[in-house]
Amino acid sequence: MIRSRSPEVDWIAVDWGTTNLRVWIMGRTGQPVQTLCSKRGMGGLQRHEFEPALLELIGVHLPDDRVTQVICCGMVGARQGWEEVEYIATPCTVPNGNDAKLAATNDPRIKVLILPGLKQTDPADVMRGEETQIAGFLEENHGFNGIICLPGTHTKWVQVDGEKIAGFCTFMTGELFSLLSERSVLRHSISATGWSDENFTVALADALSDPESISAMLFCIRAQSLILDLNPEAARARLSGLLIGMEMAAMGPSLQGQAVAVVGAAGISGVYGAGLEALNLSPVVVNANDVTLHGLCAAHQKIRNSAQ
Amino acid sequence: MIRSRSPEVDWIAVDWGTTNLRVWIMGRTGQPVQTLCSKRGMGGLQRHEFEPALLELIGVHLPDDRVTQVICCGMVGARQGWEEVEYIATPCTVPNGNDAKLAATNDPRIKVLILPGLKQTDPADVMRGEETQIAGFLEENHGFNGIICLPGTHTKWVQVDGEKIAGFCTFMTGELFSLLSERSVLRHSISATGWSDENFTVALADALSDPESISAMLFCIRAQSLILDLNPEAARARLSGLLIGMEMAAMGPSLQGQAVAVVGAAGISGVYGAGLEALNLSPVVVNANDVTLHGLCAAHQKIRNSAQ
Repeated sequence: MIRSRSPEVDWIAVDWGTTNLRVWIMGRTGQPVQTLCSKRGMGGLQRHEFEPALLELIGVHLPDDRVTQVICCGMVGARQGWEEVEYIATPCTVPNGNDAKLAATNDPRIKVLILPGLKQTDPADVMRGEETQIAGFLEENHGFNGIICLPGTHTKWVQVDGEKIAGFCTFMTGELFSLLSERSVLRHSISATGWSDENFTVALADALSDPESISAMLFCIRAQSLILDLNPEAARARLSGLLIGMEMAAMGPSLQGQAVAVVGAAGISGVYGAGLEALNLSPVVVNANDVTLHGLCAAHQKIRNSAQ
Repeated sequence: MIRSRSPEVDWIAVDWGTTNLRVWIMGRTGQPVQTLCSKRGMGGLQRHEFEPALLELIGVHLPDDRVTQVICCGMVGARQGWEEVEYIATPCTVPNGNDAKLAATNDPRIKVLILPGLKQTDPADVMRGEETQIAGFLEENHGFNGIICLPGTHTKWVQVDGEKIAGFCTFMTGELFSLLSERSVLRHSISATGWSDENFTVALADALSDPESISAMLFCIRAQSLILDLNPEAARARLSGLLIGMEMAAMGPSLQGQAVAVVGAAGISGVYGAGLEALNLSPVVVNANDVTLHGLCAAHQKIRNSAQ
């Protein structure tokens, strides 16, 4: 009889984005026994490289005597991913395990399922991965009605009505921040870290009152640094305030009178929370570290129940 | 007696920006006898490398028997340039040759003068190089009152009243276009060339009516490409329309009732012209290839007259 090296492994949860690959080895107690990650995101992989990239992380944990289920969400299901999984069109309920698609594999020890993303036709929008965060959030917040903000490189605002995703809207705010602070002329004036609440708050108000002038206010940061000695930490906070302020100016009218939850990592969620407070809203801020895993667990549970 | 190799050379005009070095060898007739350029812009040079970079281009043209005056404008006068030349504060007349500062040189054949840029304190703004374009434009358009638009990486809008520069405003529109089309997620959806007037016009109108939503409309380009097969040329025009539209939304109120001149290269000036027409304005579009040289010539004339 072959003895499994990892008798505890029940199934494996995977969040596979453009730049990162995150894995939770799930034990029979329903808790992760190990968390792993690598930089082998979908963006750097050819189709035939996905299975090796995954096995590189999980291979040593796989039992030899049975097939372990691997449930993935994120860009791994994109056209350039491991296996293209068609988007589900909104309005819809959050995708569940039964919507997952089987990916082609060579290793007999794994069965890989990829969850679909969501699309919206008018205005055109897409997500891959955030739908699983939403599923995880709703697992913990049954009956939530309102707007979920998922801040990130591409921040999503998702309207949830009666357990359904009614629609969503994506802002490139995070990517604009990176491009401007690291690759534009502003990089000479902006520090990589550091912060100033005061500069953030003033910039937020500037952008809320005059959002169309952002592209001029951005250059103003450079000029303030050159002729008024604006310090690089203050400049960083000002850039953030301008970009978040523009996003709040756009979202503001849709948010009034609604429950708003910000689901994200601590730092960026705090910044979005401050932006929402400037609109006189009182968002609930939820740590996002767990919601992806909760969503993947919900998908796994659904698959298990369906199989029984 | 040493015979000059270039008896025709009178003086040398230089436009030295962040990325390019452009030189006109000026003959005794007042016309350039040769135009030269290199990629040795200020951005890539240490202080001690400016003189060699210039001599690499002009050395062979320099007479040996006398000192040739070299008049420069642009980022060469920045803090990280050859010699820092203090900004002149607006409101002011355009800088003239008497405001130029002597740069340290080793080669006895040249005397290098650098023209100052302009600064504005509130809102903070700066320019280096465009003031010389304005001087050139005003040489040809004495008594112009109104707004001069100088489109580029950092587009300048300059208010001219009674021969004075009253103030100006810089937009990062051009740099945003480059960053978004070449370095953001949109690069997968946008071609390097190509155009669609229709998509530009629609995007321009979208941005004019809802400028605060630009960062969402940007991601929409990506989604349209993924799920609605937006073609890459149309996407390129749409990106341009959104960014120019946001700029027009900001500038619109200041432009009404004013004469507006767009001074720039043909392609980009046409795009700004279309943007201004969407505001029901009728700008004069002026080819900018010559205005920098005209401005440098005016500076040279002023210096010559002062010396006599």
